[in-house]
Amino acid sequence: MADVAVLGASGYAGAIAASLIWRHPFFALKHVTARSESGALLDEIHPRTRVPLVLEDWDPNVQGDVDAALVCWPHRVSAPAVAELRERGVRVVDLSADFRLRDRDTYEDWYGPHGAPDLFGAAVYGLPELYREQIPGADLVANPGCYPTAALLGLAPLARAGAIKDVVIDAKSGVSGAGRNPTQTTHYISADENMTPYKVERHRHTPEIEQELAALGADTGVTNPGVAPVDFVPHLIPMTRGILSAAHVRPTRPTTGAELAELYAAAYADEPFVTVVDAAPATKHVLGSNHARVFVHHDPRTDRILAIGVIDNLVKGAAGQAIQAFNLVHGLPETLGLEGLPLAP
Amino acid sequence: MADVAVLGASGYAGAIAASLIWRHPFFALKHVTARSESGALLDEIHPRTRVPLVLEDWDPNVQGDVDAALVCWPHRVSAPAVAELRERGVRVVDLSADFRLRDRDTYEDWYGPHGAPDLFGAAVYGLPELYREQIPGADLVANPGCYPTAALLGLAPLARAGAIKDVVIDAKSGVSGAGRNPTQTTHYISADENMTPYKVERHRHTPEIEQELAALGADTGVTNPGVAPVDFVPHLIPMTRGILSAAHVRPTRPTTGAELAELYAAAYADEPFVTVVDAAPATKHVLGSNHARVFVHHDPRTDRILAIGVIDNLVKGAAGQAIQAFNLVHGLPETLGLEGLPLAP
Amino acid sequence: MADVAVLGASGYAGAIAASLIWRHPFFALKHVTARSESGALLDEIHPRTRVPLVLEDWDPNVQGDVDAALVCWPHRVSAPAVAELRERGVRVVDLSADFRLRDRDTYEDWYGPHGAPDLFGAAVYGLPELYREQIPGADLVANPGCYPTAALLGLAPLARAGAIKDVVIDAKSGVSGAGRNPTQTTHYISADENMTPYKVERHRHTPEIEQELAALGADTGVTNPGVAPVDFVPHLIPMTRGILSAAHVRPTRPTTGAELAELYAAAYADEPFVTVVDAAPATKHVLGSNHARVFVHHDPRTDRILAIGVIDNLVKGAAGQAIQAFNLVHGLPETLGLEGLPLAP
Amino acid sequence: MADVAVLGASGYAGAIAASLIWRHPFFALKHVTARSESGALLDEIHPRTRVPLVLEDWDPNVQGDVDAALVCWPHRVSAPAVAELRERGVRVVDLSADFRLRDRDTYEDWYGPHGAPDLFGAAVYGLPELYREQIPGADLVANPGCYPTAALLGLAPLARAGAIKDVVIDAKSGVSGAGRNPTQTTHYISADENMTPYKVERHRHTPEIEQELAALGADTGVTNPGVAPVDFVPHLIPMTRGILSAAHVRPTRPTTGAELAELYAAAYADEPFVTVVDAAPATKHVLGSNHARVFVHHDPRTDRILAIGVIDNLVKGAAGQAIQAFNLVHGLPETLGLEGLPLAP
Repeated sequence: MADVAVLGASGYAGAIAASLIWRHPFFALKHVTARSESGALLDEIHPRTRVPLVLEDWDPNVQGDVDAALVCWPHRVSAPAVAELRERGVRVVDLSADFRLRDRDTYEDWYGPHGAPDLFGAAVYGLPELYREQIPGADLVANPGCYPTAALLGLAPLARAGAIKDVVIDAKSGVSGAGRNPTQTTHYISADENMTPYKVERHRHTPEIEQELAALGADTGVTNPGVAPVDFVPHLIPMTRGILSAAHVRPTRPTTGAELAELYAAAYADEPFVTVVDAAPATKHVLGSNHARVFVHHDPRTDRILAIGVIDNLVKGAAGQAIQAFNLVHGLPETLGLEGLPLAP
Repeated sequence: MADVAVLGASGYAGAIAASLIWRHPFFALKHVTARSESGALLDEIHPRTRVPLVLEDWDPNVQGDVDAALVCWPHRVSAPAVAELRERGVRVVDLSADFRLRDRDTYEDWYGPHGAPDLFGAAVYGLPELYREQIPGADLVANPGCYPTAALLGLAPLARAGAIKDVVIDAKSGVSGAGRNPTQTTHYISADENMTPYKVERHRHTPEIEQELAALGADTGVTNPGVAPVDFVPHLIPMTRGILSAAHVRPTRPTTGAELAELYAAAYADEPFVTVVDAAPATKHVLGSNHARVFVHHDPRTDRILAIGVIDNLVKGAAGQAIQAFNLVHGLPETLGLEGLPLAP
Repeated sequence: MADVAVLGASGYAGAIAASLIWRHPFFALKHVTARSESGALLDEIHPRTRVPLVLEDWDPNVQGDVDAALVCWPHRVSAPAVAELRERGVRVVDLSADFRLRDRDTYEDWYGPHGAPDLFGAAVYGLPELYREQIPGADLVANPGCYPTAALLGLAPLARAGAIKDVVIDAKSGVSGAGRNPTQTTHYISADENMTPYKVERHRHTPEIEQELAALGADTGVTNPGVAPVDFVPHLIPMTRGILSAAHVRPTRPTTGAELAELYAAAYADEPFVTVVDAAPATKHVLGSNHARVFVHHDPRTDRILAIGVIDNLVKGAAGQAIQAFNLVHGLPETLGLEGLPLAP
Repeated sequence: MADVAVLGASGYAGAIAASLIWRHPFFALKHVTARSESGALLDEIHPRTRVPLVLEDWDPNVQGDVDAALVCWPHRVSAPAVAELRERGVRVVDLSADFRLRDRDTYEDWYGPHGAPDLFGAAVYGLPELYREQIPGADLVANPGCYPTAALLGLAPLARAGAIKDVVIDAKSGVSGAGRNPTQTTHYISADENMTPYKVERHRHTPEIEQELAALGADTGVTNPGVAPVDFVPHLIPMTRGILSAAHVRPTRPTTGAELAELYAAAYADEPFVTVVDAAPATKHVLGSNHARVFVHHDPRTDRILAIGVIDNLVKGAAGQAIQAFNLVHGLPETLGLEGLPLAP
């Protein structure tokens, strides 16, 4: 057993993370924190969690007594808390963006000054499908962004094969991705019966996708000449959960649907949470679960590849993936505590 | 032509009111105001209005130069502004609750101290289907609440006939009824795929419904012994617009479906905006329009009457009804500027 | 271990039942059937079930080899299949209405001729909160209707106390209650942004509610004079899952909020799946789970009681409740296989 | 005045077309037809139309007595009816795809044999923003597809300037685009809280977009080397109405945001129904109206242009655009009968 704290448990990802840890056979949920709602019970604020723990104020001397922590705070705010936890020897999976990038200039260009420079670059990127060998035993794991998770699962086999000459990622997310803070954007009347692109000038998940696509190419000794820069455009869709990443790829060399089907089948044959499907996937197929569905299609008429990844943005795109990495960090079966299934339909 | 100001045009009802006045053949929209968004164009904030007027700060010396005004402010805040407009001779339709009740103790019991006591009781209740004779020429019209509009249209024929012994009103509203202010309640993630009753202890539309049901009985010399107090329970439903009021009535005397059908057909035969239907109505049938649909059914097994009214809460339940009254005040055809139809489906 | 068949696994309730059995620590899912989609894999049709079993045609000689079965067929069609299973000694929980009523005239009045008259009256009504003592060891359990479950959980303490003089049940359901068959009613364009009452003349869940309310009174030696007939009006709400039953009760004797709070707290103190809450409950609080939330409120102004029950119509209102009863039938802990929680929000 | 018939008025586009004609100051709606629902009143089936006309069976000798007709039938079925109407001298706007393509091999490749080969190529493509000079007086107008309308409005200035080297169109539509026929795809439970790409192998709107992009280049004497073939991928989004076309363009030559802004402002300066906006547009901004919003953005980091068009798929994408063309055909002001505004929000 390992004692665990969840920092930022009143947000959507934090609440789900706490609820998964609460029921996990190996971890014991010892602390949950919330900045503005401390003193309340978590299941008062999020009844579906059924976690009857009192939300605490963040105090490293209090929550620092655990073995491991999930930090569900926004970027820039997260890094100093992670540093304090690390100083006390607490193993951390950080759900913010603070430790995902490996190039500090890129981080500062997209996010501003880093809140814990000494730790910069110390994390493993927590996408088990790409870093399964590196995560076990890691002290600090950077949980991938929701869009990068969907995009990378859709594109990884192509990137590894050096097959991406040029890529446009047109992604769509449910409203929970905008967080729990009530704004005009997240107001029901604004979001319902509406869709819109957003952050079209610059979305911070872009360099994360570029970094990992480049790394995938490097691993195999091939180059992905057109990979960077990636054109990434997200959209807000009137639904609570779900991300669909549609990557439109111009390939480096001629290919066929059969070749791609084989490539993807081989890449994900042993993955517990990734299913390659042969018809266009729907986000509802993975709603409420840690599963991803991946689809690839080559259009001989346009010689373009469509590579789609769908996930639940709050589970495989956040809290569930963090538990998956947590399991690996602790040497546990990767699916532990994640096998519960959402009820259909 | 009459010059018109819309106070509070950045809220949902105010924006619709402004957009209807802007296209009205008789009225000229001269001013639109907004407390926190003054300086912006109305159609920047509400693109669908297509009203390219700058939102002004409220200043009686500025907006007081019009012939008539629609005041779309919350209760308590509205009354003093209405008083200032009235002092300048401006005819007002007030969309707040400040002038709907005719008994001051009741007002203070449910709303607190009144903001313009000298004007209390000076308004005509602006439900044309009940007060068509009194509205023309009125200087001050109190626009009915959204729930009372739906409930009273559903119940008026029964109340006039003295047929209501006991009534439970179980009402349901789309989220726009909660206003434009972003809160946890109006957050998409809270409202989507969810329904809940609210203000079950005490909703301020209750005394308004009771007042008008009693008046309907009084008008005909009959008594509605069970009418007051009314049991009223509203629910929040995951949709943008629409109110459905289901009134469950225990009748004072034996009745039949045929008798009720005749009663309702006669009551609404000449109404331009009320249609009596013989199958359960749906809010979508009136979405985006000033129309109401009314349905009555007697269950011989339980000897109870179900009287349903459906409206679009922002149109017949707010802005459209205000225009309807405005037309009557100014001696215009009641339907002027309200004939445009929402497009199906 | 017991071998189980799920008949009608391609419908919503059947698919969920199959998915719960598939992961249940005691039951082994041996057969799933579907009338029109036999030959397909269940998880092709309902990917979220992740049940990779082939849907079979119904054949008592094939599926009759199990120890127990869940029958998820429509009423009238279900009874003969239940009879065939019972002849082979298979224990059955029947999710249809065929065995819920105990008075045959009432059944025939509301449903028509019964499909297995010899078995009529042989079932235990499978609401564990009311029949926990009778379900263990039962060979045939009639799974309650979705509306009766919500209504009865909300009203049972009052009924047992003989406190109901008169009751109006105004209920609201998500669209999944209308079943998987595509019709104009279940078409997205009809259901979205819409609400409507339906079957206002006569909904078949009415006599079921009346039967159980009467029985609750009888159990305690008190009478519920106004209980029958019950006025029941259901509404269709634009959401996938969830039922909210708002029961408006005229009490037989004076009461207070404090007295009711105590009554309800006592009634449900030990229930694993029922939580009494002190603020109006929302269906989203129980979405995807077998939990119910119950709320009671007395309005001293109107002397009326509001008794609300909320459930997920497909889980506590169908498949989850069937597993709960199945556990009891087999002498297992009632919550086995139902402890998985839906992820918030 | 011109007498008009609407064929296929029970579908979504047909119902809206009929409702717009019914209120049009110049046209008189004489006939509405429906294949399977003839005999019913149109406003029984679509209450919001408020068109109290009886739906007739199609009979050229009956409906052929009008001056002009809108044919709202599916492709392949439409062409023979159009031919019969043309033989009787009836002017036709055809909302199907049957007369949109100008190359017969392309038509047959994507749609199969044509139903009225003699008329093939006789129509003007009814996008007023591109063919305003050709539409007046035309006897046969092919109303553009919903996706092509959104995509072409977004891309036309670039295409005319010969600036498109390569284009990926990632489009999203509300469910009404799938038509009124109830299927598993349009079932509320399938569509709600879900998104999915569809027809990824081959969507029939692709050659229509390619044809018009090529024509735009040809018009200006420039070439758009990468325009054909176009990569087009549509998605189904959980909302009733709205299309968003996001075109990701690789330009033929260096450009800047300022240059593009100028290009688009000039292109649409005088358009009554197209607004160029400088922030990402939302479909709700045009919901229920004939308006389109267009947005263009150049990302200097990736040297890619994002060109977005949003419309209401049933109005500017179908019935409204047909009326717009109808006005032009008859020498009327283009906006006649289309000025009514949808009510915000």
